[in-house]
Amino acid sequence: MDIQHYMQDIGRRARGASREMARASTATKNAALLAVAAGIARDKAALQAANARDVARARANGQDPAFIDRLTLSDKAIATMIEGLRQIAALADPIGEISNLKFRPTGIQVGQMRVPLGVIGIIYESRPNVTIDAAALCLKSGNATILRGGSEAIESNTALAALIQQGLAEAGLPADAVQVVGTTDRAAVGALVTMTEYVDVIVPRGGKSLIARLIDEARVPMIKHLDGICHVYVDDLADLTKARVICDNAKTHRYGTCNTMETLLVAASVAPRFLPDMARDFQAKQVELRCCAASRAIVEAAGIGALVSATDEDWETEYLAPVLALKIVAGLDEAIEHINMHGSAHTDAIVTENYSTAMRFLREVDSASVMVNASTRFADGFEYGLGAEIGISNDKLHARGPVGLEGLTSLKYIVLGSGQVRE
Amino acid sequence: MDIQHYMQDIGRRARGASREMARASTATKNAALLAVAAGIARDKAALQAANARDVARARANGQDPAFIDRLTLSDKAIATMIEGLRQIAALADPIGEISNLKFRPTGIQVGQMRVPLGVIGIIYESRPNVTIDAAALCLKSGNATILRGGSEAIESNTALAALIQQGLAEAGLPADAVQVVGTTDRAAVGALVTMTEYVDVIVPRGGKSLIARLIDEARVPMIKHLDGICHVYVDDLADLTKARVICDNAKTHRYGTCNTMETLLVAASVAPRFLPDMARDFQAKQVELRCCAASRAIVEAAGIGALVSATDEDWETEYLAPVLALKIVAGLDEAIEHINMHGSAHTDAIVTENYSTAMRFLREVDSASVMVNASTRFADGFEYGLGAEIGISNDKLHARGPVGLEGLTSLKYIVLGSGQVRE
Repeated sequence: MDIQHYMQDIGRRARGASREMARASTATKNAALLAVAAGIARDKAALQAANARDVARARANGQDPAFIDRLTLSDKAIATMIEGLRQIAALADPIGEISNLKFRPTGIQVGQMRVPLGVIGIIYESRPNVTIDAAALCLKSGNATILRGGSEAIESNTALAALIQQGLAEAGLPADAVQVVGTTDRAAVGALVTMTEYVDVIVPRGGKSLIARLIDEARVPMIKHLDGICHVYVDDLADLTKARVICDNAKTHRYGTCNTMETLLVAASVAPRFLPDMARDFQAKQVELRCCAASRAIVEAAGIGALVSATDEDWETEYLAPVLALKIVAGLDEAIEHINMHGSAHTDAIVTENYSTAMRFLREVDSASVMVNASTRFADGFEYGLGAEIGISNDKLHARGPVGLEGLTSLKYIVLGSGQVRE
Repeated sequence: MDIQHYMQDIGRRARGASREMARASTATKNAALLAVAAGIARDKAALQAANARDVARARANGQDPAFIDRLTLSDKAIATMIEGLRQIAALADPIGEISNLKFRPTGIQVGQMRVPLGVIGIIYESRPNVTIDAAALCLKSGNATILRGGSEAIESNTALAALIQQGLAEAGLPADAVQVVGTTDRAAVGALVTMTEYVDVIVPRGGKSLIARLIDEARVPMIKHLDGICHVYVDDLADLTKARVICDNAKTHRYGTCNTMETLLVAASVAPRFLPDMARDFQAKQVELRCCAASRAIVEAAGIGALVSATDEDWETEYLAPVLALKIVAGLDEAIEHINMHGSAHTDAIVTENYSTAMRFLREVDSASVMVNASTRFADGFEYGLGAEIGISNDKLHARGPVGLEGLTSLKYIVLGSGQVRE
């Protein structure tokens, strides 16, 4: 019950601060971002000391090296945070933008104004750099933020929160605009995702298990994606040279990212020409192939071994590893059906030179990002030109795909009149 | 448990039909809408006979005249439905629209395509005309629809559903694209609002009690507003002639609508000049005034009686009746604070000739529609030029304010490449 009150108090203060943030000028918000950057540079030693205590505790608790790496605020990690703050300060301010202001026959002029969402809750794992990234994006978009990072990073996050609040104060903004939940009690998360009166949206950043758990509990809407089961479909009329380069990049550029290809679909007519070389490329990089019967036959006939037969489960698995599911399809219709049925509506690409096929794929694949002749790895806020990314959504309401500053805003209607009334 | 299976089956069929609807051409969708209109005209007698049975049962159950009026499919109501279908057929198709397609330095071209949401559940009271309106808007926007109307209209809705499905079939579209829930069991609503795997969004149309109940139950996102506590603020520098006309219209044009003014805020400096005439206008129309102490003193001093002293509850009440809460505020800051604290984020207006005051009100009032020198009654899809309206939302995610065809769509990213991969 104490945690409930504690979280309610944080929520109430965030709601209050969100009003001030909504009317803050671009210059003021940028000044706050740059003040935080200066504070981090100034107090780097103290920050790293706090972080070192988190790291020591995590080591003592037997966390693995990858975890320790994400937790550690190295010199390079700190330089990246400072650079990130400067970049976000340099982005255009989305707030206050007025669009589509048009006269109606009644004489009123109707348009829309971009406004902040209000209060954004960020729930993330033990990566202290997210504290700065997320706070900076929410600040620039005029929102108040409640940050709840992994408990292993509590000292780092508390130190960063102090620097953020100092930067806000220096710029004349309310310190409550960015609050870090100061308890590691798991009940704080439950409170945060159900305080619909104080929190407008939750952005979870972390693995599938974190997000799956939040989906069950949350009453506040979330901007999230659960997994990225991304496909590349190599069409009958694909340029097979392009296809080979794109598939290699989509799978092997990075294995652990949500926009990595997990299933390769190949049109039956090109499979005999395409698959042997492609399979050799993957084998050279130690990518395990889980094949349907037809693709297995073709690849084996080309003298390539170490293949695994795919099961139904493979079509719906996000490996995040050097493993690829491989399936031969009759053509476009089967490819679209497979993607819409088994995919996760994240990012899917076709390789084809056929105009009509490309147009149908673009229209009929129901995913957040749909691509022609490009690697799925491009599904990213920076690659799309959003300037930043708070996450990727594969939901359909509100933001879909990579979410930048605009995804943290909403449009309200504005009406400019000169005394009009409704007849 | 039977109801659960029944609803799951409806959901599964809707999801299947939604894929076909998403790729239907504009001409096909329009043909379906016009076929439904023709079918209603053709089978009008049978439709009215089914409706008459609903009306007879409702009368026998002692429903009041207003209820019977909304339930009855008179000749005029049927003509209006037919005209509505034709108007929706004539609207531009939002689906497939591509925007912001821009080259990135990597050579890929990134833009957004407007796509349907998928499956939309509509829950409404015993107004059979909503069956046609809602189905038509969802159809035009390429969505599949599950309609759950009030149980008192079940025979009318079943007859309308048959006509809609016949129209869909005539145009070559799947009949499952519009399904009417054929049971009056309340459990069907519970199933509909929790089938997140089959339903993408719920649009409830009805009174506050219906919507409040659904908020508790729903797991599927909703496009909704709970109430409309709308304000007009008459500023220090208002043109008092405009103010009087706007306030009269905002309150008395229609008492029962969600965009009707419920609280009038008046700057202290103009209250002595403005309130006596304004109060007389309201009194002439039998509008009960619930006054703060300061406004009561001014109005009483002008010789106007029959006033009621406002309590705190009045600032948060949607009267939907000839009753108006009246409060004097110090000026703009207090007005904005009052609206953001006590309003329902629906529609709020200022009357002022001061540029800076108007700009601050537009930016700082956190409502779905914010107006300057115009009646709150303009908050409406038709008045805003949306061509149609499925409802009004005062949520911040996704559509905000009047929701037309675009509110039933989503944007996905599309990427056009020529073989690019990520470095």
